[in-house]
Amino acid sequence: MAAKTSDVRDERRTIAFLGGTGPLGRGLALRLAVAGHTCILGSRDASRAEEAAAGVVEIAGSGLEARNPEPGGPEGSVAGAANIDAVAGADMVVVSVPYDAMAATLTDVRDEVGDSIVICCVNALDFDRAGPRPRRVEGGSAAQECQELLPRARVVGAFHHLSAVSLLKPGEPLDCDVLVLGDDAAANDAVAALVDELGGARPIHAGPLRLSQPVEDLTAVLIAVNKRYRAHAGIRLTDVGAAPR
Amino acid sequence: MAAKTSDVRDERRTIAFLGGTGPLGRGLALRLAVAGHTCILGSRDASRAEEAAAGVVEIAGSGLEARNPEPGGPEGSVAGAANIDAVAGADMVVVSVPYDAMAATLTDVRDEVGDSIVICCVNALDFDRAGPRPRRVEGGSAAQECQELLPRARVVGAFHHLSAVSLLKPGEPLDCDVLVLGDDAAANDAVAALVDELGGARPIHAGPLRLSQPVEDLTAVLIAVNKRYRAHAGIRLTDVGAAPR
Repeated sequence: MAAKTSDVRDERRTIAFLGGTGPLGRGLALRLAVAGHTCILGSRDASRAEEAAAGVVEIAGSGLEARNPEPGGPEGSVAGAANIDAVAGADMVVVSVPYDAMAATLTDVRDEVGDSIVICCVNALDFDRAGPRPRRVEGGSAAQECQELLPRARVVGAFHHLSAVSLLKPGEPLDCDVLVLGDDAAANDAVAALVDELGGARPIHAGPLRLSQPVEDLTAVLIAVNKRYRAHAGIRLTDVGAAPR
Repeated sequence: MAAKTSDVRDERRTIAFLGGTGPLGRGLALRLAVAGHTCILGSRDASRAEEAAAGVVEIAGSGLEARNPEPGGPEGSVAGAANIDAVAGADMVVVSVPYDAMAATLTDVRDEVGDSIVICCVNALDFDRAGPRPRRVEGGSAAQECQELLPRARVVGAFHHLSAVSLLKPGEPLDCDVLVLGDDAAANDAVAALVDELGGARPIHAGPLRLSQPVEDLTAVLIAVNKRYRAHAGIRLTDVGAAPR
Protein backbone atom coordinates (compact mmCIF):
# COMPACT_ATOMS: atom_id res chain seq x y z
CA MET A 1 0.00 0.00 0.00
CA ALA A 2 1.44 3.34 -1.01
CA ALA A 3 1.05 6.60 0.85
CA LYS A 4 -1.70 8.73 -0.62
CA THR A 5 -0.75 11.96 -2.22
CA SER A 6 -1.75 14.68 0.22
CA ASP A 7 -2.38 18.34 0.07
CA VAL A 8 0.07 18.80 2.91
CA ARG A 9 -0.36 21.88 5.05
CA ASP A 10 2.32 23.06 7.43
CA GLU A 11 0.93 21.18 10.37
CA ARG A 12 0.27 18.01 8.38
CA ARG A 13 3.20 15.77 9.10
CA THR A 14 4.75 12.80 7.44
CA ILE A 15 5.54 10.56 10.38
CA ALA A 16 7.71 7.45 10.23
CA PHE A 17 7.24 4.75 12.88
CA LEU A 18 10.30 2.65 13.63
CA GLY A 19 8.93 -0.49 15.19
CA GLY A 20 5.73 0.49 13.48
CA THR A 21 4.41 -3.04 13.23
CA GLY A 22 4.10 -3.33 17.03
CA PRO A 23 0.81 -2.48 18.74
CA LEU A 24 1.89 0.98 19.99
CA GLY A 25 3.21 2.04 16.58
CA ARG A 26 0.10 0.79 14.81
CA GLY A 27 -2.19 2.40 17.37
CA LEU A 28 -0.50 5.79 17.15
CA ALA A 29 -0.41 5.64 13.34
CA LEU A 30 -4.11 4.85 13.27
CA ARG A 31 -5.05 7.82 15.43
CA LEU A 32 -2.69 10.24 13.70
CA ALA A 33 -3.75 9.15 10.20
CA VAL A 34 -7.38 9.70 11.17
CA ALA A 35 -6.29 13.19 12.26
CA GLY A 36 -4.94 13.83 8.78
CA HIS A 37 -1.25 12.93 8.98
CA THR A 38 0.69 10.73 6.58
CA CYS A 39 1.93 7.77 8.60
CA ILE A 40 4.53 5.30 7.41
CA LEU A 41 5.00 2.15 9.42
CA GLY A 42 8.61 1.04 9.27
CA SER A 43 9.97 -2.46 9.71
CA ARG A 44 13.16 -4.31 8.89
CA ASP A 45 10.95 -6.20 6.47
CA ALA A 46 9.02 -3.96 4.06
CA SER A 47 6.39 -6.56 3.32
CA ARG A 48 5.61 -7.01 7.03
CA ALA A 49 5.27 -3.24 7.29
CA GLU A 50 2.86 -3.12 4.36
CA GLU A 51 0.83 -5.90 5.91
CA ALA A 52 0.65 -4.03 9.22
CA ALA A 53 -0.37 -0.85 7.41
CA ALA A 54 -3.18 -2.67 5.61
CA GLY A 55 -4.38 -3.97 8.99
CA VAL A 56 -4.46 -0.45 10.41
CA VAL A 57 -6.40 0.86 7.43
CA GLU A 58 -8.90 -1.95 7.91
CA ILE A 59 -9.40 -1.05 11.59
CA ALA A 60 -9.78 2.60 10.69
CA GLY A 61 -12.51 1.64 8.26
CA SER A 62 -14.13 4.66 6.76
CA GLY A 63 -12.62 6.81 9.53
CA LEU A 64 -9.72 7.83 7.36
CA GLU A 65 -12.09 9.60 5.00
CA ALA A 66 -14.89 10.50 7.38
CA ARG A 67 -12.79 12.27 9.97
CA ASN A 68 -10.65 14.30 7.64
CA PRO A 69 -10.41 17.78 9.08
CA GLU A 70 -12.13 19.53 6.18
CA PRO A 71 -13.72 18.51 2.89
CA GLY A 72 -11.08 18.67 0.22
CA GLY A 73 -8.46 19.14 2.89
CA PRO A 74 -5.47 16.94 3.59
CA GLU A 75 -6.11 13.25 3.81
CA GLY A 76 -4.40 11.08 6.35
CA SER A 77 -2.99 7.74 5.32
CA VAL A 78 -1.09 4.73 6.57
CA ALA A 79 1.53 2.96 4.47
CA GLY A 80 4.34 0.52 5.17
CA ALA A 81 8.01 0.59 4.15
CA ALA A 82 11.45 -0.62 5.13
CA ASN A 83 12.71 1.43 8.09
CA ILE A 84 15.19 3.44 6.07
CA ASP A 85 12.64 4.33 3.40
CA ALA A 86 10.07 5.24 6.02
CA VAL A 87 12.46 7.68 7.67
CA ALA A 88 13.80 9.13 4.42
CA GLY A 89 10.44 10.65 3.51
CA ALA A 90 9.40 11.72 7.01
CA ASP A 91 9.68 14.94 8.92
CA MET A 92 9.02 13.26 12.28
CA VAL A 93 10.11 9.86 13.53
CA VAL A 94 8.45 7.79 16.25
CA VAL A 95 10.69 5.18 17.85
CA SER A 96 8.67 2.33 19.33
CA VAL A 97 11.05 -0.60 18.91
CA PRO A 98 11.85 -2.88 21.84
CA TYR A 99 14.75 -1.48 23.85
CA ASP A 100 17.08 -4.28 22.79
CA ALA A 101 16.60 -3.37 19.13
CA MET A 102 16.88 0.40 19.58
CA ALA A 103 20.61 0.98 19.12
CA ALA A 104 20.89 -1.12 15.96
CA THR A 105 17.72 0.35 14.45
CA LEU A 106 18.74 3.95 15.06
CA THR A 107 22.32 3.47 13.89
CA ASP A 108 20.97 2.22 10.54
CA VAL A 109 18.87 5.33 9.94
CA ARG A 110 20.98 8.03 11.56
CA ASP A 111 21.82 9.92 8.37
CA GLU A 112 18.24 9.87 7.15
CA VAL A 113 16.91 11.14 10.48
CA GLY A 114 19.14 14.21 10.40
CA ASP A 115 17.75 16.96 12.62
CA SER A 116 14.15 15.71 12.57
CA ILE A 117 11.98 15.58 15.64
CA VAL A 118 12.26 12.07 17.08
CA ILE A 119 9.69 10.82 19.58
CA CYS A 120 11.08 8.06 21.75
CA CYS A 121 8.41 5.83 23.34
CA VAL A 122 10.83 3.10 24.36
CA ASN A 123 10.62 1.65 27.86
CA ALA A 124 13.68 -0.27 29.04
CA LEU A 125 12.15 -3.02 31.17
CA ASP A 126 13.16 -6.42 32.44
CA PHE A 127 10.71 -9.22 33.15
CA ASP A 128 11.17 -12.12 35.50
CA ARG A 129 8.89 -14.38 37.52
CA ALA A 130 7.91 -11.49 39.81
CA GLY A 131 6.85 -9.40 36.83
CA PRO A 132 8.24 -6.25 35.20
CA ARG A 133 10.94 -3.99 36.56
CA PRO A 134 12.87 -1.03 35.19
CA ARG A 135 16.20 -1.84 33.62
CA ARG A 136 19.12 0.44 34.50
CA VAL A 137 20.61 1.59 31.21
CA GLU A 138 23.93 3.25 30.64
CA GLY A 139 22.62 6.50 29.22
CA GLY A 140 20.14 7.00 32.07
CA SER A 141 17.05 6.32 29.98
CA ALA A 142 16.12 5.02 26.56
CA ALA A 143 15.30 8.56 25.42
CA GLN A 144 18.70 9.88 26.49
CA GLU A 145 20.40 7.01 24.67
CA CYS A 146 18.24 7.78 21.64
CA GLN A 147 19.61 11.33 21.74
CA GLU A 148 23.19 10.02 21.98
CA LEU A 149 22.61 7.76 18.99
CA LEU A 150 21.03 10.60 16.98
CA PRO A 151 23.04 13.64 18.07
CA ARG A 152 21.53 16.03 15.51
CA ALA A 153 17.93 15.01 16.12
CA ARG A 154 15.59 16.80 18.49
CA VAL A 155 14.56 13.91 20.72
CA VAL A 156 11.36 14.08 22.75
CA GLY A 157 10.16 11.37 25.15
CA ALA A 158 6.40 10.75 24.94
CA PHE A 159 3.62 8.16 24.55
CA HIS A 160 5.15 5.78 27.12
CA HIS A 161 1.95 4.95 28.96
CA LEU A 162 -0.60 4.77 26.18
CA SER A 163 -2.62 1.59 25.92
CA ALA A 164 -2.27 0.14 22.43
CA VAL A 165 -5.58 -1.63 22.99
CA SER A 166 -7.26 1.74 23.50
CA LEU A 167 -5.41 3.44 20.65
CA LEU A 168 -6.63 0.76 18.27
CA LYS A 169 -10.29 1.59 19.02
CA PRO A 170 -10.45 4.80 17.01
CA GLY A 171 -14.02 5.63 17.98
CA GLU A 172 -13.28 5.70 21.70
CA PRO A 173 -11.66 8.73 23.28
CA LEU A 174 -8.52 8.04 25.28
CA ASP A 175 -8.60 8.95 28.96
CA CYS A 176 -5.04 9.85 29.88
CA ASP A 177 -2.35 12.46 29.91
CA VAL A 178 0.80 12.13 27.85
CA LEU A 179 3.96 13.30 29.58
CA VAL A 180 6.19 15.10 27.08
CA LEU A 181 9.87 15.44 27.94
CA GLY A 182 12.56 17.15 25.92
CA ASP A 183 15.17 19.85 25.71
CA ASP A 184 13.91 21.64 22.57
CA ALA A 185 10.84 23.75 23.30
CA ALA A 186 9.64 23.85 19.69
CA ALA A 187 9.95 20.08 19.35
CA ASN A 188 8.07 19.60 22.62
CA ASP A 189 5.29 21.85 21.34
CA ALA A 190 5.08 19.93 18.06
CA VAL A 191 4.71 16.66 19.96
CA ALA A 192 2.16 18.20 22.30
CA ALA A 193 0.15 19.20 19.21
CA LEU A 194 0.13 15.56 18.08
CA VAL A 195 -1.09 14.47 21.52
CA ASP A 196 -3.99 16.88 21.19
CA GLU A 197 -4.99 15.12 17.97
CA LEU A 198 -5.12 11.61 19.43
CA GLY A 199 -8.58 12.21 20.88
CA GLY A 200 -9.07 12.52 24.64
CA ALA A 201 -5.40 12.68 25.58
CA ARG A 202 -3.85 15.79 27.12
CA PRO A 203 -0.21 16.74 26.68
CA ILE A 204 1.73 17.68 29.81
CA HIS A 205 5.12 19.34 29.52
CA ALA A 206 6.93 17.25 32.09
CA GLY A 207 10.48 18.54 32.01
CA PRO A 208 13.80 18.03 30.25
CA LEU A 209 14.92 14.81 28.58
CA ARG A 210 16.91 13.81 31.64
CA LEU A 211 13.64 13.26 33.50
CA SER A 212 12.50 10.62 31.01
CA GLN A 213 13.85 7.77 33.13
CA PRO A 214 11.15 7.92 35.84
CA VAL A 215 8.49 8.24 33.14
CA GLU A 216 9.80 5.23 31.24
CA ASP A 217 10.23 3.24 34.45
CA LEU A 218 6.69 4.00 35.59
CA THR A 219 5.53 1.75 32.76
CA ALA A 220 6.60 -1.23 34.90
CA VAL A 221 4.26 -0.01 37.64
CA LEU A 222 1.38 0.42 35.20
CA ILE A 223 1.92 -3.12 33.94
CA ALA A 224 1.75 -4.38 37.54
CA VAL A 225 -1.42 -2.35 38.10
CA ASN A 226 -2.95 -3.65 34.86
CA LYS A 227 -2.32 -7.21 35.96
CA ARG A 228 -3.88 -6.71 39.38
CA TYR A 229 -6.87 -4.65 38.26
CA ARG A 230 -7.30 -6.33 34.83
CA ALA A 231 -7.13 -2.83 33.41
CA HIS A 232 -5.43 -0.69 30.78
CA ALA A 233 -4.39 1.98 33.23
CA GLY A 234 -3.39 5.41 32.03
CA ILE A 235 -2.26 8.34 34.10
CA ARG A 236 -3.79 11.73 34.62
CA LEU A 237 -2.19 14.57 36.52
CA THR A 238 -4.55 16.53 38.71
CA ASP A 239 -4.48 20.28 39.36
CA VAL A 240 -2.49 21.27 36.27
CA GLY A 241 -5.12 23.44 34.70
CA ALA A 242 -6.95 23.10 31.41
CA ALA A 243 -9.11 20.06 30.81
CA PRO A 244 -8.17 17.79 27.91
CA ARG A 245 -9.32 18.92 24.52
CA MET B 1 1.27 18.58 74.39
CA ALA B 2 0.43 15.04 75.42
CA ALA B 3 -1.48 12.49 73.38
CA LYS B 4 -5.10 12.29 74.42
CA THR B 5 -6.30 9.13 76.05
CA SER B 6 -8.35 7.32 73.43
CA ASP B 7 -10.89 4.57 73.41
CA VAL B 8 -8.83 2.74 70.83
CA ARG B 9 -10.64 0.30 68.58
CA ASP B 10 -8.85 -2.24 66.47
CA GLU B 11 -8.66 -0.06 63.40
CA ARG B 12 -7.68 3.02 65.37
CA ARG B 13 -3.93 3.25 65.03
CA THR B 14 -1.20 4.92 66.95
CA ILE B 15 1.02 6.26 64.20
CA ALA B 16 4.51 7.65 64.68
CA PHE B 17 5.88 10.08 62.10
CA LEU B 18 9.67 10.12 61.75
CA GLY B 19 10.44 13.44 60.15
CA GLY B 20 7.07 14.46 61.46
CA THR B 21 7.88 18.14 61.70
CA GLY B 22 8.20 18.43 57.90
CA PRO B 23 5.21 19.45 55.80
CA LEU B 24 4.32 15.94 54.57
CA GLY B 25 4.44 14.43 58.06
CA ARG B 26 2.38 17.26 59.51
CA GLY B 27 -0.13 17.09 56.68
CA LEU B 28 -0.61 13.34 56.97
CA ALA B 29 -0.87 13.53 60.76
CA LEU B 30 -3.51 16.25 60.46
CA ARG B 31 -5.70 14.22 58.10
CA LEU B 32 -5.25 10.95 60.00
CA ALA B 33 -5.91 12.56 63.39
CA VAL B 34 -9.11 14.07 62.02
CA ALA B 35 -10.01 10.52 60.93
CA GLY B 36 -9.63 9.37 64.53
CA HIS B 37 -6.06 8.08 64.75
CA THR B 38 -3.51 8.91 67.44
CA CYS B 39 -0.64 10.63 65.65
CA ILE B 40 2.75 11.30 67.23
CA LEU B 41 5.09 13.61 65.38
CA GLY B 42 8.67 12.55 65.96
CA SER B 43 11.78 14.69 65.77
CA ARG B 44 15.34 14.49 67.02
CA ASP B 45 14.30 17.39 69.24
CA ALA B 46 11.20 16.64 71.34
CA SER B 47 10.36 20.30 71.87
CA ARG B 48 10.37 20.97 68.12
CA ALA B 49 8.05 18.01 67.69
CA GLU B 50 5.67 19.34 70.34
CA GLU B 51 5.68 22.74 68.67
CA ALA B 52 4.87 21.17 65.30
CA ALA B 53 2.06 19.12 66.87
CA ALA B 54 0.56 22.24 68.41
CA GLY B 55 0.65 23.89 64.99
CA VAL B 56 -1.20 20.96 63.43
CA VAL B 57 -3.85 21.02 66.14
CA GLU B 58 -4.32 24.72 65.49
CA ILE B 59 -4.83 24.14 61.75
CA ALA B 60 -7.25 21.33 62.48
CA GLY B 61 -9.26 23.73 64.64
CA SER B 62 -12.41 22.15 65.88
CA GLY B 63 -12.07 19.45 63.22
CA LEU B 64 -10.47 17.05 65.64
CA GLU B 65 -13.65 16.98 67.67
CA ALA B 66 -16.22 17.74 64.99
CA ARG B 67 -15.20 15.00 62.57
CA ASN B 68 -14.81 12.19 65.05
CA PRO B 69 -16.39 9.11 63.51
CA GLU B 70 -19.06 8.68 66.17
CA PRO B 71 -20.13 10.52 69.31
CA GLY B 72 -18.35 9.01 72.26
CA GLY B 73 -16.13 7.09 69.86
CA PRO B 74 -12.38 7.27 69.55
CA GLU B 75 -10.84 10.69 69.36
CA GLY B 76 -7.95 11.45 67.09
CA SER B 77 -5.06 13.47 68.39
CA VAL B 78 -1.69 14.90 67.45
CA ALA B 79 1.23 15.01 69.87
CA GLY B 80 4.97 15.46 69.57
CA ALA B 81 7.85 13.43 70.98
CA ALA B 82 11.47 12.48 70.44
CA ASN B 83 11.72 9.99 67.56
CA ILE B 84 12.44 7.02 69.78
CA ASP B 85 9.54 7.77 72.14
CA ALA B 86 7.20 8.34 69.20
CA VAL B 87 8.03 4.94 67.75
CA ALA B 88 7.97 3.10 71.08
CA GLY B 89 4.25 3.71 71.56
CA ALA B 90 3.19 3.28 67.94
CA ASP B 91 1.87 0.37 65.94
CA MET B 92 2.61 2.02 62.60
CA VAL B 93 5.52 4.22 61.58
CA VAL B 94 5.58 6.78 58.77
CA VAL B 95 9.05 7.67 57.51
CA SER B 96 9.11 11.11 55.92
CA VAL B 97 12.63 12.25 56.69
CA PRO B 98 14.88 13.63 53.95
CA TYR B 99 16.73 10.80 52.22
CA ASP B 100 20.07 11.88 53.63
CA ALA B 101 18.78 11.50 57.18
CA MET B 102 17.01 8.19 56.64
CA ALA B 103 19.70 5.67 57.48
CA ALA B 104 20.75 7.37 60.71
CA THR B 105 17.16 7.95 61.84
CA LEU B 106 16.09 4.35 61.21
CA THR B 107 19.19 2.83 62.79
CA ASP B 108 18.38 4.72 65.99
CA VAL B 109 14.86 3.30 66.27
CA ARG B 110 15.30 -0.18 64.80
CA ASP B 111 14.60 -2.11 67.99
CA GLU B 112 11.52 -0.04 68.82
CA VAL B 113 10.10 -0.48 65.32
CA GLY B 114 10.25 -4.28 65.55
CA ASP B 115 7.82 -5.86 63.11
CA SER B 116 5.53 -2.85 62.79
CA ILE B 117 4.15 -1.64 59.51
CA VAL B 118 6.48 1.08 58.23
CA ILE B 119 5.31 3.46 55.52
CA CYS B 120 8.21 4.91 53.59
CA CYS B 121 7.41 8.19 51.80
CA VAL B 122 11.03 9.11 51.14
CA ASN B 123 12.05 10.34 47.68
CA ALA B 124 15.76 10.21 46.92
CA LEU B 125 16.24 13.27 44.71
CA ASP B 126 19.08 15.51 43.70
CA PHE B 127 18.67 19.15 42.81
CA ASP B 128 20.90 21.26 40.61
CA ARG B 129 20.49 24.34 38.44
CA ALA B 130 18.33 22.39 35.96
CA GLY B 131 15.97 21.31 38.72
CA PRO B 132 15.24 17.98 40.40
CA ARG B 133 16.36 14.57 39.26
CA PRO B 134 16.18 11.08 40.74
CA ARG B 135 19.21 9.97 42.69
CA ARG B 136 20.46 6.44 42.06
CA VAL B 137 20.70 4.77 45.47
CA GLU B 138 22.48 1.57 46.34
CA GLY B 139 19.45 -0.38 47.51
CA GLY B 140 17.45 0.49 44.38
CA SER B 141 15.03 2.82 46.15
CA ALA B 142 14.60 4.53 49.49
CA ALA B 143 11.85 2.06 50.39
CA GLN B 144 14.04 -0.94 49.67
CA GLU B 145 16.83 0.58 51.76
CA CYS B 146 14.29 1.23 54.51
CA GLN B 147 13.48 -2.50 54.44
CA GLU B 148 17.17 -3.39 54.63
CA LEU B 149 17.62 -1.09 57.61
CA LEU B 150 14.53 -2.52 59.36
CA PRO B 151 14.64 -6.18 58.38
CA ARG B 152 11.79 -7.27 60.68
CA ALA B 153 9.44 -4.45 59.72
CA ARG B 154 6.78 -4.74 57.04
CA VAL B 155 7.77 -1.84 54.81
CA VAL B 156 5.24 -0.29 52.44
CA GLY B 157 6.01 2.55 50.02
CA ALA B 158 3.22 5.14 49.82
CA PHE B 159 2.30 8.85 50.00
CA HIS B 160 5.16 9.90 47.69
CA HIS B 161 3.17 12.30 45.53
CA LEU B 162 0.85 13.95 48.01
CA SER B 163 0.91 17.71 48.16
CA ALA B 164 1.62 18.84 51.71
CA VAL B 165 -0.09 22.13 50.86
CA SER B 166 -3.29 20.24 50.06
CA LEU B 167 -3.01 17.89 53.04
CA LEU B 168 -2.79 20.88 55.35
CA LYS B 169 -6.19 22.18 54.17
CA PRO B 170 -8.30 19.65 56.05
CA GLY B 171 -11.62 20.87 54.68
CA GLU B 172 -10.64 20.30 51.05
CA PRO B 173 -10.79 16.83 49.55
CA LEU B 174 -7.60 15.62 47.93
CA ASP B 175 -7.77 14.78 44.23
CA CYS B 176 -5.22 12.03 43.69
CA ASP B 177 -4.42 8.37 43.86
CA VAL B 178 -1.86 6.99 46.28
CA LEU B 179 0.29 4.21 44.85
CA VAL B 180 0.87 1.56 47.54
CA LEU B 181 3.83 -0.78 47.06
CA GLY B 182 4.90 -3.61 49.32
CA ASP B 183 5.55 -7.30 49.72
CA ASP B 184 3.18 -7.99 52.64
CA ALA B 185 -0.44 -8.08 51.51
CA ALA B 186 -1.89 -7.39 54.96
CA ALA B 187 0.40 -4.42 55.46
CA ASN B 188 -0.52 -3.08 52.02
CA ASP B 189 -4.21 -3.37 52.91
CA ALA B 190 -3.68 -1.55 56.21
CA VAL B 191 -1.97 1.32 54.39
CA ALA B 192 -4.69 1.36 51.73
CA ALA B 193 -7.23 1.74 54.55
CA LEU B 194 -5.36 4.82 55.79
CA VAL B 195 -5.39 6.28 52.28
CA ASP B 196 -9.18 5.89 52.20
CA GLU B 197 -9.39 8.00 55.33
CA LEU B 198 -7.41 10.96 53.99
CA GLY B 199 -10.42 12.33 52.15
CA GLY B 200 -10.59 12.19 48.34
CA ALA B 201 -7.55 10.01 47.83
CA ARG B 202 -7.80 6.52 46.37
CA PRO B 203 -5.34 3.73 47.18
CA ILE B 204 -3.94 1.77 44.24
CA HIS B 205 -2.09 -1.47 44.84
CA ALA B 206 0.86 -0.81 42.56
CA GLY B 207 3.10 -3.83 42.99
CA PRO B 208 5.92 -5.18 45.11
CA LEU B 209 8.42 -3.06 47.00
CA ARG B 210 10.97 -3.43 44.23
CA LEU B 211 8.76 -1.21 42.04
CA SER B 212 9.00 1.70 44.47
CA GLN B 213 11.92 3.27 42.60
CA PRO B 214 9.90 4.55 39.61
CA VAL B 215 7.23 5.83 41.99
CA GLU B 216 9.77 7.68 44.12
CA ASP B 217 11.57 8.99 41.05
CA LEU B 218 8.35 10.27 39.50
CA THR B 219 8.30 12.88 42.25
CA ALA B 220 11.06 14.70 40.35
CA VAL B 221 8.77 14.88 37.32
CA LEU B 222 5.88 16.19 39.42
CA ILE B 223 8.14 18.88 40.86
CA ALA B 224 9.08 19.92 37.29
CA VAL B 225 5.39 19.95 36.33
CA ASN B 226 4.49 21.98 39.42
CA LYS B 227 7.10 24.56 38.52
CA ARG B 228 5.91 24.89 34.92
CA TYR B 229 2.17 24.88 35.65
CA ARG B 230 2.37 26.61 39.05
CA ALA B 231 0.42 23.64 40.38
CA HIS B 232 0.38 21.01 43.10
CA ALA B 233 0.02 18.13 40.68
CA GLY B 234 -1.16 14.75 41.88
CA ILE B 235 -1.61 11.63 39.85
CA ARG B 236 -4.69 9.61 39.05
CA LEU B 237 -4.73 6.30 37.24
CA THR B 238 -7.54 5.89 34.74
CA ASP B 239 -9.46 2.71 33.98
CA VAL B 240 -8.70 0.89 37.24
CA GLY B 241 -12.25 0.61 38.49
CA ALA B 242 -13.93 2.03 41.55
CA ALA B 243 -14.08 5.78 42.03
CA PRO B 244 -12.37 7.23 45.09
CA ARG B 245 -14.34 6.99 48.28
